[in-house]
This record gives sequence, C-alpha cells and structure tokens, in this order.
Amino acid sequence: MGLAGHEVVAAVLQVRAGSLQVMLWQRGKEPHAHRWSLPGGGLGDEEDVETSIRRQLAEKVDVRQLSHVEQLAVFSNPARVPGARVIATAFLGLVPSDIDPVVPSDTCWHPVDSLPPTAFDHEAICARARNRLAAKLSYTNLGFALAPPAFTISALRSLYSAALGYKVSATNLQRVLSRRGLLEPTGATAPPGPAGGRPAALFRFVSGEMRVTDPFAVLRPPSTRSLGP
Amino acid sequence: MGLAGHEVVAAVLQVRAGSLQVMLWQRGKEPHAHRWSLPGGGLGDEEDVETSIRRQLAEKVDVRQLSHVEQLAVFSNPARVPGARVIATAFLGLVPSDIDPVVPSDTCWHPVDSLPPTAFDHEAICARARNRLAAKLSYTNLGFALAPPAFTISALRSLYSAALGYKVSATNLQRVLSRRGLLEPTGATAPPGPAGGRPAALFRFVSGEMRVTDPFAVLRPPSTRSLGP
Repeated sequence: MGLAGHEVVAAVLQVRAGSLQVMLWQRGKEPHAHRWSLPGGGLGDEEDVETSIRRQLAEKVDVRQLSHVEQLAVFSNPARVPGARVIATAFLGLVPSDIDPVVPSDTCWHPVDSLPPTAFDHEAICARARNRLAAKLSYTNLGFALAPPAFTISALRSLYSAALGYKVSATNLQRVLSRRGLLEPTGATAPPGPAGGRPAALFRFVSGEMRVTDPFAVLRPPSTRSLGP
Repeated sequence: MGLAGHEVVAAVLQVRAGSLQVMLWQRGKEPHAHRWSLPGGGLGDEEDVETSIRRQLAEKVDVRQLSHVEQLAVFSNPARVPGARVIATAFLGLVPSDIDPVVPSDTCWHPVDSLPPTAFDHEAICARARNRLAAKLSYTNLGFALAPPAFTISALRSLYSAALGYKVSATNLQRVLSRRGLLEPTGATAPPGPAGGRPAALFRFVSGEMRVTDPFAVLRPPSTRSLGP
C-alpha cells in the first residue's frame, strides 16, 4: 500500500466572551505562511494518535485544562496539503469557560463564526468540531466540559447559547437537564451582582464523564433501569 | 514526520438468524494465516478513506446493499500489525436483515458474541462497531439500516434485541419510536403466520437518513421546532 505521512490536529474549543472560539496559531513559514492553523503535528513512530495529540497540545496549552478530548474524523483527501501526502486524524478538545490558558505568542482564540484565513482544510475541521459539539450537547451531558465547576442557570444558558449558535431558554434548559439527572444544586448561591437582587442558586454537573443522557428509556439494558418505586 | 502505511477496514454488521453478526474473511497467508479478518486493505494514492472502503467492500459484497457506512475510529497502536507500521481507519457498515449478500468463498458471517480467532486488533474493532451501533440505536433512527423496507413491530423488536444484546419490549419500542415520529404504518398487514391469528400491521421508518431523534427539545434550533397547531 502507499505510504503517507500521518498527522494529528485538534480543534480546541472554548466559550469566551459569549462566543464559541477555537485556538489557532499563525504559521510563520510556507506552506500557507501567515494563515491560521490548528495545533498538532506529525505522529511519532512510537505513539498512537491519542498519545500524540496530547503531547502536541501540551506544547500549546496545559493539557490538564482540557476537559474533554475525542476523535473527530480522519481527513484524507489526497490533496489536502501541498506536496507529499499527509493524512490527518482530527480531534475535538474542550476547555471550560473559567480557565484562560496561557498560550504561545503565535497562538490566539478566534470565534468559529468569523475565522481568519485558515491553512489547508482546517476550516472544514473546525466546522466538523463545532457540529460535533452541538450534536453532543443535545444528547449527552457534554455541557460539563464547557462549564466551570459551579454556575448559575443564567451562566449555563449563555454557554449553551454560544456553543449552539442560537438562544436557548434558561427555564427549559434547567428543566430538561434537571429532569435527566445531569444537574444538581451545590447548595450555595452566587454573590449578588452590582444591581443587587435575589442571589442565584449555583449548580454543578453530576458527572464529568461523557454519557448519552436520554437513550430511549425502553432500550436501556435491564441493569441500568431504575429499580423503583 | 514518520511514514506509515494506511489501511481502511470495515466491521459490516447484520442481524442474521436472530443474532448480530459480522462479515469476516479467513486469511490464507501469513501473517495471521487462518485467522478471521475484517474486509479492507491499503489506501490507494488517489483516494480518500471513504472512497477506499467503498471500493474495497465492493470486492466482497454489493455495496448498494449497505444501508449505512460511517467512520468509527482510527486504530494506531504502533504494534497493531507485525512488521512495518500500518494505521487503520475503521468503519462501521450495516446491511438490512432482508438481504443476504453473496460473499466470496473465504468470507462468512459470525455472531459478534462468539467470534472465531481474529487477526490483529480486529476483535477490538468489532467491539467498537457493536458499541457504536448500540449507542446510536438509542439516540438516532439508525434502526432503519437494520430493518427491511416494511416490518411488523414484533420483527423490529427482534432486530433491536439482537443488535442490543438484550430483550426490549415490543410495546415500549413501538410507543417510543412512534412518538418520536420515526415509524409510520405502511397501511398494509403481514400475511398471517402458519398459526393464523390476526394479521399484524406493517410499519416502515419515515427516513433513511440518520438523524438524532431526541435532541433535548429545548436545544433545537428555532427553525426545526414544530410550528403548530
């Protein structure tokens, strides 16, 4: 079979200043000098793709700050980069909104809906990452990976709205997430804002492990069904 | 970066004789002679991974008989095959239960829960495919890809039970799938069985395109919300 280079790249997403943003670095050299590129690089001979992307992201950002990493898809168009063929395994990474990672000077965050000129097929990879996130917010508890450890419902609504790209209702969001057992109150309240008013209750996600939150109830394996009453 | 071979492999699944089965071929030569292997092969220089897996599956089975194909994951352990490194992009493929593809003489179907000795990491790939299918049956309409064009609820229940590995209730299955708008009656009934009895209504899936069937309703984009009544 033909030999090809293999690289790993990651679209690391975070809600920042009310919008969903992606971490990009500006290329200094050709090809695609000055364009903005996803972090990543060549797969080492001794590592698998998961080990590789974590190693490469560690050069950009403290990887302990990543709340979630998953394989997104293989991008394998023979012409996706100039010159010798390189196949990419693309990942989605998420950073909670309360963290501001220290990034190298060539790196910054860009809103996913107004990207600067990007390198290679990285815009398509960003779009795939954004779609995967939006889909998983709708059937998993993945909101935990965007949110700080404790938050008001109003703050959570802002995160979901930014990640989805349209406004969601705070009331409905709280009702659905609570009914599905994803959220629980911390027992504390947020300090009142400058305008005063009633202090808002703080919530947290029950779990920091991704799971599908509403498998058709009747399709669940018997052991995971509620035992009563 | 290091060069590596790149291959594509597919776990093609079908419910056959009441159990979920995977299509495997028996290797004639080393390495892993006589072990059972997923269909696939080396990525050609001019094709992407999707084109490649369809080409390679076409050598085993009429690909028009595949009701669904999706990327599963990259398998990239440096030692996953003996000799020079080969990275695999693995796919999940599905065949509806009413089709019996003509396969080559080295190829046959095996129940996923009692596989013969398998080659390389193909057992892990089968397990990943099976888990992906079970997960998607629980939050998408992917049942369409296992089912014939029209079926009784009893037959559909058998398909879901086989694919999930545990019995589901026909009543609950019909209620949930109907409420979510996935199923519709064809208007016809199945011919009565040898024991006679009331003829059973036939149903079909409304769509043959995969979609998430129960995104949290409140998280749907405004345009997809119901407008009426």
